[in-house]
Amino acid sequence: VICNILCVGTELLLGQIVDTNSSFIAEQLADAGIESYEQRTVGDNPQRIAHVLTSMLGSADAVIVTGGLGPTHDDITREVVAEMMGVELHVDENVMTHMKSIFERRNKDMPESNMRQAMVPEGATVIMNALGTAPGLICPVADKFVYLTPGVPHEMKPMVTESIIDHITKQQSDQHVIVTRTLKSWGLSESELADMLADFVEEGESGSVKIGFLARGINGIYIKLSTSAPTHKDAEILIEPVEIRILEMLADHIYATDDETMETIVIDLLQKRSLKLAIAESLTGGMISSRLVDPAGASDVLLGCVVAYDPAVKNNVLEVKVEDVYSDECAQQMADGVRKHLGADIAISTTGVAGPGPDDGHPQGEVFIGISTKEKTFSQQLRLGGDRQRVREYATISAMNLLRQFLLNSEVASS
Amino acid sequence: VICNILCVGTELLLGQIVDTNSSFIAEQLADAGIESYEQRTVGDNPQRIAHVLTSMLGSADAVIVTGGLGPTHDDITREVVAEMMGVELHVDENVMTHMKSIFERRNKDMPESNMRQAMVPEGATVIMNALGTAPGLICPVADKFVYLTPGVPHEMKPMVTESIIDHITKQQSDQHVIVTRTLKSWGLSESELADMLADFVEEGESGSVKIGFLARGINGIYIKLSTSAPTHKDAEILIEPVEIRILEMLADHIYATDDETMETIVIDLLQKRSLKLAIAESLTGGMISSRLVDPAGASDVLLGCVVAYDPAVKNNVLEVKVEDVYSDECAQQMADGVRKHLGADIAISTTGVAGPGPDDGHPQGEVFIGISTKEKTFSQQLRLGGDRQRVREYATISAMNLLRQFLLNSEVASS
Repeated sequence: VICNILCVGTELLLGQIVDTNSSFIAEQLADAGIESYEQRTVGDNPQRIAHVLTSMLGSADAVIVTGGLGPTHDDITREVVAEMMGVELHVDENVMTHMKSIFERRNKDMPESNMRQAMVPEGATVIMNALGTAPGLICPVADKFVYLTPGVPHEMKPMVTESIIDHITKQQSDQHVIVTRTLKSWGLSESELADMLADFVEEGESGSVKIGFLARGINGIYIKLSTSAPTHKDAEILIEPVEIRILEMLADHIYATDDETMETIVIDLLQKRSLKLAIAESLTGGMISSRLVDPAGASDVLLGCVVAYDPAVKNNVLEVKVEDVYSDECAQQMADGVRKHLGADIAISTTGVAGPGPDDGHPQGEVFIGISTKEKTFSQQLRLGGDRQRVREYATISAMNLLRQFLLNSEVASS
Repeated sequence: VICNILCVGTELLLGQIVDTNSSFIAEQLADAGIESYEQRTVGDNPQRIAHVLTSMLGSADAVIVTGGLGPTHDDITREVVAEMMGVELHVDENVMTHMKSIFERRNKDMPESNMRQAMVPEGATVIMNALGTAPGLICPVADKFVYLTPGVPHEMKPMVTESIIDHITKQQSDQHVIVTRTLKSWGLSESELADMLADFVEEGESGSVKIGFLARGINGIYIKLSTSAPTHKDAEILIEPVEIRILEMLADHIYATDDETMETIVIDLLQKRSLKLAIAESLTGGMISSRLVDPAGASDVLLGCVVAYDPAVKNNVLEVKVEDVYSDECAQQMADGVRKHLGADIAISTTGVAGPGPDDGHPQGEVFIGISTKEKTFSQQLRLGGDRQRVREYATISAMNLLRQFLLNSEVASS
């Protein structure tokens, strides 16, 4: 099965937004072993949408279309596809009920214009939208399928992963199962990773398991394993020994696997050790804290955070004594201070120069991370590249990674 | 002149990277008044590149191609286009000299494979690459043009802005300029906005100015105005009265224009009033703080933030007395508490249920935002939809928006 991707939206042709939908969908297709040869983007123009979609269906078995399902007059994907199907649109009562309940919950009247979003082509299957009004639609066009999803990424994503990929896979005659594993690394470059795995790969020890590297910016470098077999179990038997060997070779450079994130891993380690965490942030401005509250278990282990952006807050609230706020001492005193202030077992801190430009004789990207427990206080100095935003993001993940490695390798007493 | 965009790269079809080149190029084209109707992406396959490029030249005057100019065997854009031009490739001595000097600077021998990057189709014009090895190429194909650039964004960008846009503009007989304006709204749905502007739009008061809506998730809904005219000044004369009328109709639902963000607007308002801000966050976990430190001027007005995730921190650090942490009283006491604790003029706070699911009899998405000054403390209750992450993101922007509206409409004494 070949499934291509079409994005609809004049705002894309005008360069007003970056299209992240195509890469998301493409990755899901690739992981499911579905081939994809082309991505196209057109504006909100019915003739062009119809023309491009017809052309795309000529060389593919299915097309996933994102965008153009909104309530306004320029959202016309639904109508164009109904015409290609040669059918009328009708009101879907389930969608209408769902939409009304959304507006009721918001204590608002449903505007007339939203009615259009409940219109469904005859013969199309509705994919309910738990996170918004416009449903997804599975539309048979001759012997092929057009899948319509909203352009809003968080509404589109569950439709693709939970409904559309399954529906495409069921059309495949060759029912091979693809199993993938993503090992997430932090702290090594792509070429360092490749060197560490070179012997293993070159001697063919990975067998039919393909190994690829994906640079993921602030999430580090992902090592992607994939293999296919007639059944899920067969594929697991192929991939498991390769995964185990790579985890042995890369040790604690791998911080997480598949859906795990740096946040879930850190929260999990704290939970297992019954430790309460406090955070003190300067240049990261609350980014560590706002990422660590992401996993649902965060409230068991995270007491809170003091963002000491102003030096006076460092001195008065965190009892920082050292004058140079860009120093190991400051990071350590911040960590000690916030641990005591919030009554935590362990604390982590950041200070440094986000930029733009150097400050007070310290270069942009000079960052200090502190860790404090009752038994031990220490810090790490980093020199990070990139602009203001990037320095902060790298400092955030570096701090979480230092905390992770410390928790893995040390005993910390809980109160 | 119509100029479309083609990205070449199998990594794009596999979803391994997000394509940011198309939106960059599209924006440059739009700003120069060059029409663009389609963006396409294909893999590193010579037949498919040739097929798609031929098809694209059928409906456009020019195509900008990014990617496939690297030194490896799967980089074949150059060869495909030479064949379409019906010419041979030859070594360009200037490019060869430039490439050799790059390797000399790096103290490395130039690998044999890089030689390919100095190969130029007969009749093509070279665009030198100051930041890398592969040059850009302006390739005449019959009476049209194909522009080749590397896929690496920072090498591609100067070629587009400094050479390619100029070259396309010179082909135009009709020199139209497009002017756009983005008005960013928060608090109203797309259909509510459409209803509010319906009479204005239907009675043709917007004239030749097109009005579109862009749903931007946590950034609200953007209202995009665009118009074209022979000169920039003419276009401004058309767009300005429409912008003013819409700002009147939507009043303070519009929080920012064009490159301004909620963060820059809030920081700017605080700066103008010489006010120091403190933040107390519960469910948002530091997200308000980490967004408000984004503008470079943040350090002038933001003292810091206490993330009081654990109720004990609310009681001990922020002196919250009320038992129900999901209440107006709690939000108000948090705001009062952090304002005093950090010595600020004004403070903002958040508490509520991020989820998953209800807590302590309060439904997911129930959120309270508090604001405190020396003269006045008040709060606002919201009911937000979506999952845990979305509730927090909406609470964050809602809090910043409440602060913005309060600062616009109230006098606050600075210390």
